[in-house]
Amino acid sequence: MNKNFLNLKDSYLFSTIARKVNEFQKANPNTKIIRLGIGDVTLPLTKAVITALKEAVLEMGEAHTFKGYGPEQGYEFLRIAIKDYYKEKNVSLKADEIFVSDGAKSDIGNILDIFSSEYVSLIPNPVYPAYLDANIMAGRKVNFLNGSEANNFLPMPEDGNGGDLIYLCSPNNPTGSTYTKEQLKVWVDYANKNNAVILFDSAYECFVRDKNLPTSIFEIEGAKTCAIEFCSFSKTAGFTGTRCGYTVVPHDLVQEGTSLNKLWLRRQTTKFNGVPYIIQRGASAIFTPQGKKEVEENIKYYLENAKIIRKTFKELGFWFVGGDNSPYIWLKCPDNMDSWSFFDKMLTEANIVGTPGAGFGTAGEGYFRISAFGARENVIEAMDRIKKLY
Amino acid sequence: MNKNFLNLKDSYLFSTIARKVNEFQKANPNTKIIRLGIGDVTLPLTKAVITALKEAVLEMGEAHTFKGYGPEQGYEFLRIAIKDYYKEKNVSLKADEIFVSDGAKSDIGNILDIFSSEYVSLIPNPVYPAYLDANIMAGRKVNFLNGSEANNFLPMPEDGNGGDLIYLCSPNNPTGSTYTKEQLKVWVDYANKNNAVILFDSAYECFVRDKNLPTSIFEIEGAKTCAIEFCSFSKTAGFTGTRCGYTVVPHDLVQEGTSLNKLWLRRQTTKFNGVPYIIQRGASAIFTPQGKKEVEENIKYYLENAKIIRKTFKELGFWFVGGDNSPYIWLKCPDNMDSWSFFDKMLTEANIVGTPGAGFGTAGEGYFRISAFGARENVIEAMDRIKKLY
Repeated sequence: MNKNFLNLKDSYLFSTIARKVNEFQKANPNTKIIRLGIGDVTLPLTKAVITALKEAVLEMGEAHTFKGYGPEQGYEFLRIAIKDYYKEKNVSLKADEIFVSDGAKSDIGNILDIFSSEYVSLIPNPVYPAYLDANIMAGRKVNFLNGSEANNFLPMPEDGNGGDLIYLCSPNNPTGSTYTKEQLKVWVDYANKNNAVILFDSAYECFVRDKNLPTSIFEIEGAKTCAIEFCSFSKTAGFTGTRCGYTVVPHDLVQEGTSLNKLWLRRQTTKFNGVPYIIQRGASAIFTPQGKKEVEENIKYYLENAKIIRKTFKELGFWFVGGDNSPYIWLKCPDNMDSWSFFDKMLTEANIVGTPGAGFGTAGEGYFRISAFGARENVIEAMDRIKKLY
Repeated sequence: MNKNFLNLKDSYLFSTIARKVNEFQKANPNTKIIRLGIGDVTLPLTKAVITALKEAVLEMGEAHTFKGYGPEQGYEFLRIAIKDYYKEKNVSLKADEIFVSDGAKSDIGNILDIFSSEYVSLIPNPVYPAYLDANIMAGRKVNFLNGSEANNFLPMPEDGNGGDLIYLCSPNNPTGSTYTKEQLKVWVDYANKNNAVILFDSAYECFVRDKNLPTSIFEIEGAKTCAIEFCSFSKTAGFTGTRCGYTVVPHDLVQEGTSLNKLWLRRQTTKFNGVPYIIQRGASAIFTPQGKKEVEENIKYYLENAKIIRKTFKELGFWFVGGDNSPYIWLKCPDNMDSWSFFDKMLTEANIVGTPGAGFGTAGEGYFRISAFGARENVIEAMDRIKKLY
């Protein structure tokens, strides 16, 4: 067996939360628990997506329209739709720089396959746990990038000891804070200078409202020679249970004379067989005029939730970041409580589930993540409960 | 970058074939090429599956039935259906020994994550290329298991130099030959004795007609302490473009005190987010009485094709294996031709695409794979063309 697995902490953050919540619910069967913990969406797939999915299902039932194996990197119709979406951001990509995936989580884990095992990973703290765990499993050396109130949880090169693979996520999970173009430019220059690769997770890009903030690393000059971008329709279009996203590996990204695009294509054609045709058809509807309109409505709904949460925390005088260009609000636990104590207090006294910041790394201790993906009435009720408590 | 990738051969078997076929078609635009090469199905998804997919799509469009993140290892409704399917084979499994996957290719590649990098892989020759390439990418040491006419392309332990991870596929891709229970018992005993793990690919199990032949490694006593089984709905139910399968990791499979089931669960929860809910609903319809009946009709259709191919080769006096309990026929190229020369002859003189045996490894040189997944009329026409040629 791979002994690196023994270095993983025994239970994954969200399963610990699920266990605690289940135990509490069992002991208090009549209590209405409001879940603002895990970053799962609640609004259904939009009409345009449903229509496309239905049509694709019908195609699969007829011999003359049936689709067998598709290209591992995704159908061209979807890759072109994504390429055109980037054009709207003034980012020019080729369709074969885009790889359709079954979600950012798979690709962010699997991308390690194409890098030397000697490479050091530079991982933010706090961070989405899967980044770190994938590195621990592979036995890779990890340096940390420390987020703090001082840097608004947007660590810069001087907040860590360097590395060859730099994980950045903006708008950030878990903190909801978003890098500026100037900050990302510093990172891009740093990566190019040090021959490092930025692994940029843009899964929350559609929540950016401030037009000055970047929604893709490729909006930054020089990024094509040093960055890979991972995105997902999970949060954009409610695809958490439908599973589709994409990874951008520019042709200009070359290491030791070898194109990383070519390596990733080879990795995917060997160890992946593509996303279901039906799902790719559904995903392509996101980029139609009707699809875009519907997605925008959903995003606005979640951001209105975030606004309600922000307003409450402002009133209560809690320190927080996020929630303006992101569905997450990152709160400093009041009264200097530690994350899990605050989690327990929220669960037992307000019957609200959030995510303890400590679950995202040591630098998250004393913080707490609230997600805006709930139903409006639940968000309002949750905020009322917190106001009563404080 | 990961320099092991430089040890891969530059182009993948099926892309080379596609290029050759495209070039020939371009030069001969009016020629009808019959494709019996790649193992892709041609019959559409069955009615029961289509109905289930449609219903699931509708569920995803309504807030009260919408599904977000599901369990990474698959919904219980599908895992229980699979468990019950194994019961029919007199194999008793627990639902949490079954992991729903997006197909055997992903899992057979990714399973390497849970094993020590020191482990030696024992890989048949000829073999499905993805097994070998995944090992080369990971820089793993590989020993080969030599298939030949002498062992009917069913190599046994004495045909190789041993290893810790033993890849077996039965009914076999590419050769179509199928291990007996007695042969698999020898492998299971060998693995248990040597603390090795058998990675058993049963993707073609539904083609087995001979009731004495095993369709799962777990029909063999002792397999639960030494084997992982990978299966897929790709060939069973035409899911090559719909992407669903499963992997069985028994609780009894323990190495150095650690349950491999637990390691695989951890790997999947970290680097995978499950198969789309819609697709899992579709897959579960395969196991309904109606679904089973429809799948059986499809399998019979393909096996009737295989019978027609076998009959032709018998008449022509060609040596071959497979096609009785498998959709593949593994043919010795007539006149001692090498595989690619025979491929070119078939393409240019009979306008038939098959797969050169040499593409599956050195021991495949001089052989040729014909797939029975085509449309009936094409199979008949292809066989007529070959008869005319010889």
